[in-house]
Amino acid sequence: MMVHSSDEDFMRMAIQVARAGVLEGQTPFGACVVHEGKVLSCLHNSVLKDTDITAHAEVLAIREACRARGSIDLSGCVIFSSCEPCPMCFSACHWARIDKIFYGARIEDAEGFGFHELPISNRLMKELGGSQVALVGDLLREESLAVFREWYARPDKKTY
Amino acid sequence: MMVHSSDEDFMRMAIQVARAGVLEGQTPFGACVVHEGKVLSCLHNSVLKDTDITAHAEVLAIREACRARGSIDLSGCVIFSSCEPCPMCFSACHWARIDKIFYGARIEDAEGFGFHELPISNRLMKELGGSQVALVGDLLREESLAVFREWYARPDKKTY
Repeated sequence: MMVHSSDEDFMRMAIQVARAGVLEGQTPFGACVVHEGKVLSCLHNSVLKDTDITAHAEVLAIREACRARGSIDLSGCVIFSSCEPCPMCFSACHWARIDKIFYGARIEDAEGFGFHELPISNRLMKELGGSQVALVGDLLREESLAVFREWYARPDKKTY
Repeated sequence: MMVHSSDEDFMRMAIQVARAGVLEGQTPFGACVVHEGKVLSCLHNSVLKDTDITAHAEVLAIREACRARGSIDLSGCVIFSSCEPCPMCFSACHWARIDKIFYGARIEDAEGFGFHELPISNRLMKELGGSQVALVGDLLREESLAVFREWYARPDKKTY
């Protein structure tokens, strides 16, 4: 599987925005939507700040990318997520017709840190749903896990 | 399975708000979140109006219910959706810890009307994910399908 150095750069942006979220008391998840090398959106999870259980990084990044493109069709875009999208976020990527999902940590990693995940992998969602989205996992997984550990060390951390 | 007449009343509210959405040029989906007989939110899909592919009725209703309760935990709440939640919306219900999902039409019905669904049923999502959410399907399915037909008859209809 081909991973370009720019893919790592975009993933580092997603991981850095996750880290920025942790510093603000949020959970360790970030995502960027990119179209032809241009970043359309880069946001961290804000479930706690917004009192909105749907405010996952990928949902927010897709919403902002729709606004940026003036379209609900994000064909030609890719998403970089610091963690494997949960089934909600995977399905949002499918609806948006995103071409490819890159992810760092895995759903099982998030589950291991105490998040109430539906443990259904993106590969299984894609297979069962017959989705065309391409998947590239484990991209800078260790760098993403480092942010989980920074979050975990905080005395004020909250899961959901 | 026990269905109370009040369950039908709440489902009719979801179907009616879906119909209101169709009259405004939106797609035929509505959802209400209810807590101990009190409606916290009742909204139709606004993907087209908002240029937001994530603006499904259930996501919007869950978001508004979180605001109404001042909490990301909707334990004790039930959701009435005019159509079986897609995997994005099912997963949002799981994250919100909603007790029970009532739905009218089925994912396969929406798919039959041209929506780009991931054809993964709520029952399969629940089983694979080990979710505790209870499911009651086919509640006023025919009344919900009537709104799909009203939408389908419109010359300006759009799917996604």
